[in-house]
Amino acid sequence: MILDKINKPEDLKTLSIEEMKKLADEMRELIIKKVNETGGHMGPNLGIVETTIAMHKVFNSPIDKIVFDVSHQCYPHKMLTGRKEGFTNPSKYYVYTGYTAPEESEHDIFKIGHTSTSVSLAVGLAKARDLKQEKGNIIALIGDGSLSGGEAFEGLDNAATLNSNIIIIVNDNDMSIAENAGGLYKNLKLLRDTKGKAELNFFKTLGFEYYYVEEGNSTEKLIETFEKVKDTNKPTVVHIRTLKGCGLKEAEENKETFHWIMPHTLDNFYKTPAEEKENYTNITTKYILNEAKKDSTLVAITPATPGVSGFTKKFREEMKNQFVDTGIAEEHAVAFASGLAKNGAKPILAVMSSFIQRTYDQLSQDLCLNNSPATILVYWSGLTNADATHLTCFDIPLMSNIPNLVYLAPTNKEEYLAMLDWSVKQNKFPTAIRVPNIELISTGIKDETDYSILNKYKVEQEGKEIAIIGLGNFLPLAHKTAEKIEKILNIKPTIINPRFITGLDIELLNKLKNNHKVVITLEDGILSGGFGEKIASFYGSSDIKVLNYGGKKEFTDRVPLEKIYKDCRLDENLITEDIQNALNLALK
Amino acid sequence: MILDKINKPEDLKTLSIEEMKKLADEMRELIIKKVNETGGHMGPNLGIVETTIAMHKVFNSPIDKIVFDVSHQCYPHKMLTGRKEGFTNPSKYYVYTGYTAPEESEHDIFKIGHTSTSVSLAVGLAKARDLKQEKGNIIALIGDGSLSGGEAFEGLDNAATLNSNIIIIVNDNDMSIAENAGGLYKNLKLLRDTKGKAELNFFKTLGFEYYYVEEGNSTEKLIETFEKVKDTNKPTVVHIRTLKGCGLKEAEENKETFHWIMPHTLDNFYKTPAEEKENYTNITTKYILNEAKKDSTLVAITPATPGVSGFTKKFREEMKNQFVDTGIAEEHAVAFASGLAKNGAKPILAVMSSFIQRTYDQLSQDLCLNNSPATILVYWSGLTNADATHLTCFDIPLMSNIPNLVYLAPTNKEEYLAMLDWSVKQNKFPTAIRVPNIELISTGIKDETDYSILNKYKVEQEGKEIAIIGLGNFLPLAHKTAEKIEKILNIKPTIINPRFITGLDIELLNKLKNNHKVVITLEDGILSGGFGEKIASFYGSSDIKVLNYGGKKEFTDRVPLEKIYKDCRLDENLITEDIQNALNLALK
Repeated sequence: MILDKINKPEDLKTLSIEEMKKLADEMRELIIKKVNETGGHMGPNLGIVETTIAMHKVFNSPIDKIVFDVSHQCYPHKMLTGRKEGFTNPSKYYVYTGYTAPEESEHDIFKIGHTSTSVSLAVGLAKARDLKQEKGNIIALIGDGSLSGGEAFEGLDNAATLNSNIIIIVNDNDMSIAENAGGLYKNLKLLRDTKGKAELNFFKTLGFEYYYVEEGNSTEKLIETFEKVKDTNKPTVVHIRTLKGCGLKEAEENKETFHWIMPHTLDNFYKTPAEEKENYTNITTKYILNEAKKDSTLVAITPATPGVSGFTKKFREEMKNQFVDTGIAEEHAVAFASGLAKNGAKPILAVMSSFIQRTYDQLSQDLCLNNSPATILVYWSGLTNADATHLTCFDIPLMSNIPNLVYLAPTNKEEYLAMLDWSVKQNKFPTAIRVPNIELISTGIKDETDYSILNKYKVEQEGKEIAIIGLGNFLPLAHKTAEKIEKILNIKPTIINPRFITGLDIELLNKLKNNHKVVITLEDGILSGGFGEKIASFYGSSDIKVLNYGGKKEFTDRVPLEKIYKDCRLDENLITEDIQNALNLALK
Repeated sequence: MILDKINKPEDLKTLSIEEMKKLADEMRELIIKKVNETGGHMGPNLGIVETTIAMHKVFNSPIDKIVFDVSHQCYPHKMLTGRKEGFTNPSKYYVYTGYTAPEESEHDIFKIGHTSTSVSLAVGLAKARDLKQEKGNIIALIGDGSLSGGEAFEGLDNAATLNSNIIIIVNDNDMSIAENAGGLYKNLKLLRDTKGKAELNFFKTLGFEYYYVEEGNSTEKLIETFEKVKDTNKPTVVHIRTLKGCGLKEAEENKETFHWIMPHTLDNFYKTPAEEKENYTNITTKYILNEAKKDSTLVAITPATPGVSGFTKKFREEMKNQFVDTGIAEEHAVAFASGLAKNGAKPILAVMSSFIQRTYDQLSQDLCLNNSPATILVYWSGLTNADATHLTCFDIPLMSNIPNLVYLAPTNKEEYLAMLDWSVKQNKFPTAIRVPNIELISTGIKDETDYSILNKYKVEQEGKEIAIIGLGNFLPLAHKTAEKIEKILNIKPTIINPRFITGLDIELLNKLKNNHKVVITLEDGILSGGFGEKIASFYGSSDIKVLNYGGKKEFTDRVPLEKIYKDCRLDENLITEDIQNALNLALK
């Protein structure tokens, strides 16, 4: 293999074009094999192989610095920068993360996993280089999909005013995760259709030098253009046309499916999929489709991540004009939802917990200050074994401290559907629902609660001495802990399902003082700034002891969930131990 | 006065062009008189008088809906929509807020005070109109300065794909608060220079129909164009050239000074300003100027709000290439700072507390996940009597729950300068400093603390029974409360200056258990998700009682600070009362 000889980018320099072509084939084959085994980003990496080879051929990393936007297309880069074993050796498949990671290599400048940040980060690198009076190229590689994010525009607008070297490679494969959405994409199409020659040019309006490469999967053509822009002193855009999934027929033809795949998707691609069990995602889409037929103002919104919420192609087609993909534009999505609600429509915005982080000010100013009764569904929330860039444990501190928002934590199917239905049909409160991130539990009993009466917690079991408040995903842990306590301590604890993340049930909490000594809180997210601390503060001046359980304030990086739980004592046995100690203290 | 006859927009419909000109003069005179008296936004409102008259002449509010971006230019709109007394009658000068406010009038659709949101909100209104199969024009009025904000771009990108009516009026006065920054502004200049005829057109790249009005302070010309675009079914941009401060010589010639003024700025404009006393702003700029000379990689950054941090024209000129105005682009500013720090420069980003809200994900992902040692100065933080759109009490919950960030709360000049100097010169931690928002206090003693040793609180007074932790701005209240307690209860409390917002001094907090029964926390911001709750959680399982003092989770709207303090019992007498009660309980 040619790849055998490549241990660092310098090793590329002497390869012939033919050898580089062969190298690309080898890399592609390794990517397909590994990603099918481990899961991960397939299409983006297959599309960018030649670009990566050409970048490392022409530029001199790490003196020249490459910033990968969202960095899910960095697999070929890792293969060329000393980490090929993560692809050639199945026993090392899990050693390297799927994103750039400075702790792995000097060729990775930043840890990146959210979109649209690369240009701004690169502008910072470039300005620092200039202040230090150094030389070197600063390159940001950004996909067409990421360009719709506001931060990318802010970055481009600023990059264009640098009087020095910065090279923005726009990797245009005419796809976001799903189809692109936004006016900008008509311009990219015009530029592709005219091979970059159209007068009307988004990048030129901002002031960039502009180059177009039609054959973005030709190492040769890319090298030609990169050589031209290397060491120039003007902000430059190189617009390259690539094929997402290039080299894998299934991925080329099913770009959305193969953007990011679960393990063995390719192996199972031609098999009939198993009937899907009921889960929180499919009961949501079923509810939406049903209600949308009855109410033509109901509209489902995704910020370019339809897969997160099960907004499949079929769902989108059925919803017709009652579905909107805003493109990667979470801020707009929240303000848009506020506008819709203010004008009497029924918006349901579905966002992954990690990406709701991009909208604090819009939640606060556009939505909650205006009391717009939109519904936000927050998916995949909770402690996670994910990469540090995609943690989903910060949404409670982020959202629950914003005035006016009603943030709900359902614990079973019936409760969730009741909350969702209430939220969509009411017109008083901006509402968010933390869609349970656990296996679906069904009670079989319709939930008739009126959620307009805010902050009423549900007592699931009346007990004494000890009360356990189990929020959302962690209500099952509350039950398990109660059982354990009853068994070990012969005390039957009270179990509470708070349902409302954003407020305290003062009446109930006060009542607990009468016959309880210890209150436990359990939340599936970081403790810092979250739910439990508010309970601790409430009881601060009383005799009630409070023990808060949840995650630590830290960026965990692919830490197994079992380890996180253990470190945080999120386990019925450990909690029972703690309670024994607390009770001893309380009884002193 | 013509204005006497105008009580609602309809009353404009019958006016002649001559009468509208006279009306504009009257309105301008009233704005100048009132704003000079009360303070407020002078330049933006003087520039937009004719546009507002023309909008209300042509469109039919509230069936047609106008969304004012940032809405600080809504004074003429208020005068024409039933609220003219707020300008004609000095006793009513303070009745109406300086921003759009739905509770005041059906002609105000949203409460708005942060920039760059109008287009997204308008897209929501327009989509709801379409789903309801209604008619009517949706208009967003946005200034050129606001276009640099990412949310505005996301909105435009989405607006352009609506197959129906939406009219974006771009009010181009060639100014943000200070000069515009960004590549886009070259294109706006090109469009102005060519009277809208240049081929290269930012708005057209996104797909908008485009109209240009050279005489944007001519009611007649504006009406002509607005008539053309009214009731059309295509996303349309009307680019109008206006004069910021139009009609007031001082404001036309000093656009930055007269963007927003303090009361009587106009009266005092030609007087020699009094020598400025030392304050936290001017000691900061002095520090920066001094250090910038010694270190050419130190760079001061503002996201288009240089006035917030005293980055005056003189300061900017002295800093030369070591000053960057990113334009209104807070997200970029944080990522940019991260890039600078990562490449060895020393960025100091100055942001108003209310606007740091726009950067949560950038603080988390771009900055803190990457441990980039940038310095962020957060100005004007604390509880405030400000408009609901400009509250500055949410920064602690927003920032302090982000991993890796070191957020510092200095309490006097020497401490602040020591923290600032440490932060700029260290290279381990992303750091933010909550610049004190109180009168400068100087101890006269240099602070030699090594802030690299994180989370070490300072004991200001050793006492017993009661410990008072006074964070930042509220350390003086801690001292006052301690005095009161000593006087009333004959107990000398411990006083603690935590200095670190982002961590607990576990050792000290544990030590307090030995001889204290009650711990008080005082913070100048909302309690929810903030500092005090963490102390309450820490002591949750102990016998220590904790009382948290701070603001409530609410959007206050021009509530006098005294009233906020009283409602939150932020007063040494009220706290002393509470402590007596808590002690009685603790001694039970």
